[in-house]
Amino acid sequence: MSNPILNIGIIGSGSWATAMIKMLGDNSLPKNIFWWVRKEEDAAYIKQYKHNPTYLSAVEVKVPENNILTQAKEVIAKSDIVVLNTPAAYLKDALRDVTAEDFKGKIVVSAIKGIVPGDNLIIGEYLQKAFQIPLENIGVVAGPCHAEEVSLEKLSYLTIASKSTENASLIASTLRTRYINTVESNDVIGIEYAAVLKNIYALAGGICHGLGFGDNFQALLISNAIREMENCVNAVDPNSSREINESAYLGDLLVTAYSQFSRNRTFGTMIGKGYTVQSAQLEMNMVAEGYYASACIQNIIQKYKLNLPICDAVYKILYQHHSAILVIRALSEKLT
Amino acid sequence: MSNPILNIGIIGSGSWATAMIKMLGDNSLPKNIFWWVRKEEDAAYIKQYKHNPTYLSAVEVKVPENNILTQAKEVIAKSDIVVLNTPAAYLKDALRDVTAEDFKGKIVVSAIKGIVPGDNLIIGEYLQKAFQIPLENIGVVAGPCHAEEVSLEKLSYLTIASKSTENASLIASTLRTRYINTVESNDVIGIEYAAVLKNIYALAGGICHGLGFGDNFQALLISNAIREMENCVNAVDPNSSREINESAYLGDLLVTAYSQFSRNRTFGTMIGKGYTVQSAQLEMNMVAEGYYASACIQNIIQKYKLNLPICDAVYKILYQHHSAILVIRALSEKLT
Repeated sequence: MSNPILNIGIIGSGSWATAMIKMLGDNSLPKNIFWWVRKEEDAAYIKQYKHNPTYLSAVEVKVPENNILTQAKEVIAKSDIVVLNTPAAYLKDALRDVTAEDFKGKIVVSAIKGIVPGDNLIIGEYLQKAFQIPLENIGVVAGPCHAEEVSLEKLSYLTIASKSTENASLIASTLRTRYINTVESNDVIGIEYAAVLKNIYALAGGICHGLGFGDNFQALLISNAIREMENCVNAVDPNSSREINESAYLGDLLVTAYSQFSRNRTFGTMIGKGYTVQSAQLEMNMVAEGYYASACIQNIIQKYKLNLPICDAVYKILYQHHSAILVIRALSEKLT
Repeated sequence: MSNPILNIGIIGSGSWATAMIKMLGDNSLPKNIFWWVRKEEDAAYIKQYKHNPTYLSAVEVKVPENNILTQAKEVIAKSDIVVLNTPAAYLKDALRDVTAEDFKGKIVVSAIKGIVPGDNLIIGEYLQKAFQIPLENIGVVAGPCHAEEVSLEKLSYLTIASKSTENASLIASTLRTRYINTVESNDVIGIEYAAVLKNIYALAGGICHGLGFGDNFQALLISNAIREMENCVNAVDPNSSREINESAYLGDLLVTAYSQFSRNRTFGTMIGKGYTVQSAQLEMNMVAEGYYASACIQNIIQKYKLNLPICDAVYKILYQHHSAILVIRALSEKLT
């Protein structure tokens, strides 16, 4: 770094990006924060009122006016650490005029939980392929952490993963606050896949809830989901030291599947109650990552010849117009 | 068995016993059901109205009048399979005039999730010690299965464990219905310990909820709890083929920790909000098994020199009058 004061850029301005702006602002390490806000009118509002007009509006934005920028390329140029924090489906658009050269020498952190549609790659893989960012320079921030509870300053834990222990520590040191503890890991790929899968399982839980299944079945479903997640992640990225019950995997699944704040669960519930995918999306005004992840994981299933019955069930319901109740009944016969 | 028609006796008349009466009644295998109901007035009510006056009152009781008995010894004498289904704290009282001779040659099934106070033994161990019942004749019925959802006929799974595969199958064959699926296991001891521990963890979750911690912390706590449970169960009863994420372990923990029906969670919430143990017990009119389990597990911790920080925290709050918020803050530093 050319500067003893760390420069951190956040790309994205949804709930989770706004939560991260809050953590970085409340964290005591000296730093410059740069924030890419796509819409001119939102950027103007944030500069004037110090609050995001749309997401986590209670959060006070502690970013100087001049550091709120509408060009992602400019934020990246000014940053030593770039945190990508858009929905996965919008990442390519956010980075459309950014080149491999722009990312050179920077630490690039994914706070995105999803797969890049079309490419069917998790963010870490996509960054390596599209921008030639070396794996050691890639970091991942994982939960269990709903943005809404960060806004409320409820004690939460983040797992920061990087193949470089030093980078994981550096990223963690910028996020810790009175209400945020951090755990460090080197499982960049496994944690990203787990984060993608958990959205599909939360969506499945929502579907079952919407269909009228109860808490007993939900517990059975999630206990099967964590085993299915372990099978999938270990097939895609074998690693004998991975502990699937650590908080970045099981914890993140639980908070997503059981929390009132989970949009994937809510989306699933609407599907279970009989909404079409289109009408559920219109109602929610938020992207349910699990919807896109479901399609992408189907490609992974085929590539690795995996047996993931819960993911299959969700795909059949969302993309192949199968009857939700018939699919879930058939699925229930496969659970133990 | 002297009779081609199976004779099954249920000892206990709380929610879970009543749910089991419903399953046995709805199950299509020919059988005679005998039911021990402790209080004369409850037995009379059930005989007259075919409903339990106090627990799961919506359930229609399909047991002939003459088979509803107020002497446990008599129910046991008439049964090939005896299902023990009282709160653990009341089991000794229920069996006070029953001898080893009475249980001879019978399959004895524990549907109790608890430890016998004073003896600090799980039910399976207690049955071996107090009545010389051989381990092969002992069975265990585990969830994830809240009684309230059985009453609503919500699809639920039970795990039936016995060292004898034949006995596990036989017990399972009496409980399966349109809304109950069964899984079989041979892990009698491990499943019982898991069922005891999960009540303590649900109570811990309730305490944190009552103190104002959010969903993010709850997910972290439960992801730590399942690892703590695995450590404990594997220390007490080593078994390399045990899969802690199966539904009898993780599923049962989840349904207890996350369900609105969980009395352990509710009890914990009251403690977290500042109720004393005595006033919380008075308010609830139900036994929170986790309260007794907490004391019993302390003995196990000392015996095996275990490191179970969540169990320790609950014990300090319930029995040693430590401040809940200080104990949970100290616990949070040990979680990952």
